[in-house]
Amino acid sequence: MDKIKVLGISGSLRADSYNTALLKSSVELSKEYMDIEIYDISRIPLYNHDHEKIKIPESVIEFKSAIESCDSLLFALPEYNSSVTGVLKNAIDWASRAESPLNGKPCAIMGASGGLSGTAGAQLHFRNIASSVNLICMNAPKLQLRRSKSLFNENNVLTDQSTVEHLIKFLKAFEEWTLKFMNKKK
Amino acid sequence: MDKIKVLGISGSLRADSYNTALLKSSVELSKEYMDIEIYDISRIPLYNHDHEKIKIPESVIEFKSAIESCDSLLFALPEYNSSVTGVLKNAIDWASRAESPLNGKPCAIMGASGGLSGTAGAQLHFRNIASSVNLICMNAPKLQLRRSKSLFNENNVLTDQSTVEHLIKFLKAFEEWTLKFMNKKK
Repeated sequence: MDKIKVLGISGSLRADSYNTALLKSSVELSKEYMDIEIYDISRIPLYNHDHEKIKIPESVIEFKSAIESCDSLLFALPEYNSSVTGVLKNAIDWASRAESPLNGKPCAIMGASGGLSGTAGAQLHFRNIASSVNLICMNAPKLQLRRSKSLFNENNVLTDQSTVEHLIKFLKAFEEWTLKFMNKKK
Repeated sequence: MDKIKVLGISGSLRADSYNTALLKSSVELSKEYMDIEIYDISRIPLYNHDHEKIKIPESVIEFKSAIESCDSLLFALPEYNSSVTGVLKNAIDWASRAESPLNGKPCAIMGASGGLSGTAGAQLHFRNIASSVNLICMNAPKLQLRRSKSLFNENNVLTDQSTVEHLIKFLKAFEEWTLKFMNKKK
């Protein structure tokens, strides 16, 4: 069987983001059974319906096509102000328009915070948004990293052993979740 | 006494947005006691902490300065995918950074939808975000317009009489709300 094809999306644009780092560690830890492509949403402009009517931006067409051709989506969600980042929400707003490739797509969400929130507020808001666009979110296990500085090494690689073990379980569960919606059996 | 100075922010960038139209009608209906300046957030770029560290964009500096110098904020919130627009959240994310002018500022929220939601989901998410950045949101009265097409005329002016009356009450309550935080008495 071909490997599952996953699109990984980070809600943060900064280069050293813990959430992007978490996606990179996920790529490594699941490479035997999943291909996770990390997608850069920094080129997607602010949503404006007037612009959409004239011409859908190339970056949006590419993004929707990448979603369309993957088996599932893996979101790494920083928490900004008790919610998802505006950057991530804006990308979802564009993707959710006519012929939405999000519709019926399985996904999982994870998040890493510098402090103690573990991005729980962002995940809660994301679940509301996901249900609205019919992204089918895995409920459990959850992955909400606290005090991320202590979990990653100086090269931004996840090294905390118990967190690595939890991420491995999370990714295996996400594989099973994705397979449920693919009519494929291992 | 000088008139209350309000910054009006629409979460939609499209020219004929019902939410922007609702702000314009609010300007007219409250002009005897409030000056509402409608602020355009379309020039605020996607938030990126790496860019912020190098240079805060001029559009963000202007936006934060406009918030700083107003007495209160009036948000007109479209609902996209059961939440606030990414565009609006992104502007809040920028404004909430160091020396946030949002901190302790009174605000009110209103929204207009084409369908039946009345933007209730967007308002709920906004209240979570507002509490996080210490914007002090007026709780009541609520203003959640449904089937907006039937409420505005062909020039996008609010003409439905009972809605106009409700908006007048809402704006008077918002004046009172703002005054509570200004140490001013009428």
